[in-house]
Amino acid sequence: MPAKAQTYKGMKDYLPGDMRLRQYIISTLTAVATRYGFEPMQTPIVEYEDTIAGKLGDDEKLIYRLQYGDDRLALRYDQTVSLARVIAQYPNEITLPFRRWAVGPSYRGERQQRGRFREFYQFDLDTVGAGGPLADAEIIAVISEALQALGFRGFRVLLNNREILSALARVVGVDEAAAGGVYRAIDKFDKIGAQGVREQLLQGGIAAEAAEEIIRFTQLDGPTAEVLEAVAAQLGSDARGAAAVQELRAVVGYLQDLGIDPATYDVAPRLARGLSYYTGTVFEAVIEQPPIGSLLGGGRYDNLIGTFADRAVPTVGTAFGIERLQIVMTELGLGPQSQGAVTAYVTIFSAELAGEALRLASELRRAGIATITALAPDKLGKQLKEAAVKTIPFALIVGPDELAKGEVVVRDLRSGEQRNVRREAVVGAVGGT
Amino acid sequence: MPAKAQTYKGMKDYLPGDMRLRQYIISTLTAVATRYGFEPMQTPIVEYEDTIAGKLGDDEKLIYRLQYGDDRLALRYDQTVSLARVIAQYPNEITLPFRRWAVGPSYRGERQQRGRFREFYQFDLDTVGAGGPLADAEIIAVISEALQALGFRGFRVLLNNREILSALARVVGVDEAAAGGVYRAIDKFDKIGAQGVREQLLQGGIAAEAAEEIIRFTQLDGPTAEVLEAVAAQLGSDARGAAAVQELRAVVGYLQDLGIDPATYDVAPRLARGLSYYTGTVFEAVIEQPPIGSLLGGGRYDNLIGTFADRAVPTVGTAFGIERLQIVMTELGLGPQSQGAVTAYVTIFSAELAGEALRLASELRRAGIATITALAPDKLGKQLKEAAVKTIPFALIVGPDELAKGEVVVRDLRSGEQRNVRREAVVGAVGGT
Repeated sequence: MPAKAQTYKGMKDYLPGDMRLRQYIISTLTAVATRYGFEPMQTPIVEYEDTIAGKLGDDEKLIYRLQYGDDRLALRYDQTVSLARVIAQYPNEITLPFRRWAVGPSYRGERQQRGRFREFYQFDLDTVGAGGPLADAEIIAVISEALQALGFRGFRVLLNNREILSALARVVGVDEAAAGGVYRAIDKFDKIGAQGVREQLLQGGIAAEAAEEIIRFTQLDGPTAEVLEAVAAQLGSDARGAAAVQELRAVVGYLQDLGIDPATYDVAPRLARGLSYYTGTVFEAVIEQPPIGSLLGGGRYDNLIGTFADRAVPTVGTAFGIERLQIVMTELGLGPQSQGAVTAYVTIFSAELAGEALRLASELRRAGIATITALAPDKLGKQLKEAAVKTIPFALIVGPDELAKGEVVVRDLRSGEQRNVRREAVVGAVGGT
Repeated sequence: MPAKAQTYKGMKDYLPGDMRLRQYIISTLTAVATRYGFEPMQTPIVEYEDTIAGKLGDDEKLIYRLQYGDDRLALRYDQTVSLARVIAQYPNEITLPFRRWAVGPSYRGERQQRGRFREFYQFDLDTVGAGGPLADAEIIAVISEALQALGFRGFRVLLNNREILSALARVVGVDEAAAGGVYRAIDKFDKIGAQGVREQLLQGGIAAEAAEEIIRFTQLDGPTAEVLEAVAAQLGSDARGAAAVQELRAVVGYLQDLGIDPATYDVAPRLARGLSYYTGTVFEAVIEQPPIGSLLGGGRYDNLIGTFADRAVPTVGTAFGIERLQIVMTELGLGPQSQGAVTAYVTIFSAELAGEALRLASELRRAGIATITALAPDKLGKQLKEAAVKTIPFALIVGPDELAKGEVVVRDLRSGEQRNVRREAVVGAVGGT
């Protein structure tokens, strides 16, 4: 009695149609990251439990734990902790600054909801061991170029610095204990609007005047240089705030030097980013349509990667969620065209002519054209139907007449038109060169 | 107190140097499989336990099991069982015959030994739902072309048919109960030699005359056509044996039609392949140096893929072990040359000239040249050392003099030579076009 055929809930099978887009996304991200000198790395999906556990607070319960013999293990929750482990483990093999990308699955026992999976793939990009704004700008540059290369238009990478929000809290007179509430309120701006933020601030005990200043600040908008100036004016009295503005200004300057399209990024003083581990520059790529909020985010997190090494290792990074990109690109009609991966289907006219069919297929493949043949001399109609069901654009037929004349029938299965083509011209007729 | 930084035993981290070869292997296999119309597929690494367990006999203990909430789960042991599940689960989405490839990790709690890992990656290639010898020949063709594309020379894909060995047992008068012992003895031929096989056969109760016939048979060697004829002569009286020879002859004929180099395959009547699930054609790629036995194997297994669908789904397939290829190719010096992934290192002469350096880097990247820059205006010697440690071939310097003259210093870090190059000629000077 066979087991029931079912995928574990919250996880997903990717059949060839889905895989083409996934491969396109990963190869595009790889190409851009490679141009910027990021290098590939891969770590096991299984880690010792104590490598992963004990850092996630409420989310500890999302970890998949397992035991094998006496080994207490866990599936990785993200790729960042494994990066931190590697940095500590291979001090002689890895030279800092280390720019690395890694793509692979991580595991979280999330409740099931649209677009959230228990096995999800991320393309991580991090520069480890570099503290300055240029490392930040490089990551942002890769994001901008990668999203453009994927076909996104009208996206923006919003830029901010966590220290700017801390300074804001200080200059409007919010005490340190209440500052966390300010960040959380600001972080919801796009969801609850100015009035919602106002209410939340007041409920959190922030004085009315301070709340208004905060709201004015989070609404700062316009050309990058003007926004930076307005932020500087507001925070100028706070030394750390002024330094953070200077750092953000440097990031923007480097983006210009790197030739990044200025229409693809914006300084956004309201950007808080949820994760408390960010320590400096933060960023988030947003898109208006479809209304999915952010495409991805990231930033500088100087206190995490050194955990295993027991020293500070300044790091900036981001992670592209492959499933999210896949969903959004499908909605927007981006990515490789729907045509299947196979270009030509060579029919087998008869058992005697199978050799002719295979030689033709071999010729097409050597010209780089993805080709399949029938696997048996079935009725021609059945063969052509197989080709049509598989949405292969061209079917080729070599019958005895064609063979005698040195020709091949080329049928365009999209239009239904067919014509006889000289054998030596077949590669060209199906789009090869 | 941070956890100790360590990789789970039996699993492996791949740093950039290793990853280049892994990526090369996977992209080469993908390219060949794609030309033959194989399509990509991906399934979760986590399956319900009852999808995987209960099929492996003694090897059940190698399964990594886990539980999350009430869900009893397991890490996949191979990609074949997941393929069987998918075939049953998506009857409307998948049209047979279905040629698919899949690459990813599987998990087995093996005892640690050289070249054997608890997390191992395989590139699987299967044609599902096709019973004839042409489907077999296609898989063998991909293996031959892929090994050639990877740079292997002097390998051979040995071909046989499981039914030929069954027929041999019958014609020499071995009863069915003892036939298993005959296969096992023959399977060890390359390890224990003719005398070893003889001893094992005699110990297994095979009559001396039958043992000699078996040994003569397993030593059949020479041109494919002659070996096939000798096999046919030996088995001609056995109907199933004669059919198997005919099938093997068809496979060889199709390989010729497909244009596969005849120096890359051989009929080998002694090939048994350990796994008892093979039902027809079997094959194994072997190489003489280094002496590692087989590179990979595979064959027709008509009774497994239908398990979940509860019907017969004839299938032929193979799996390339990425780690094994990586180890062998490293020993043979095959694969991409040792040069790193980054071609150019642009120094930052001073804070004032950072913009010039970044613009130059941006230009190189747009020309497709993988480029990194220094991330701070450190001393030039320190920057050049970083580039050298990272084995980047070219370092570029734009100082105030070069800037004034519209030039760039291009230093070849392998030879130590450097020259001034006109700014517009830099792309060409570092090997771009």
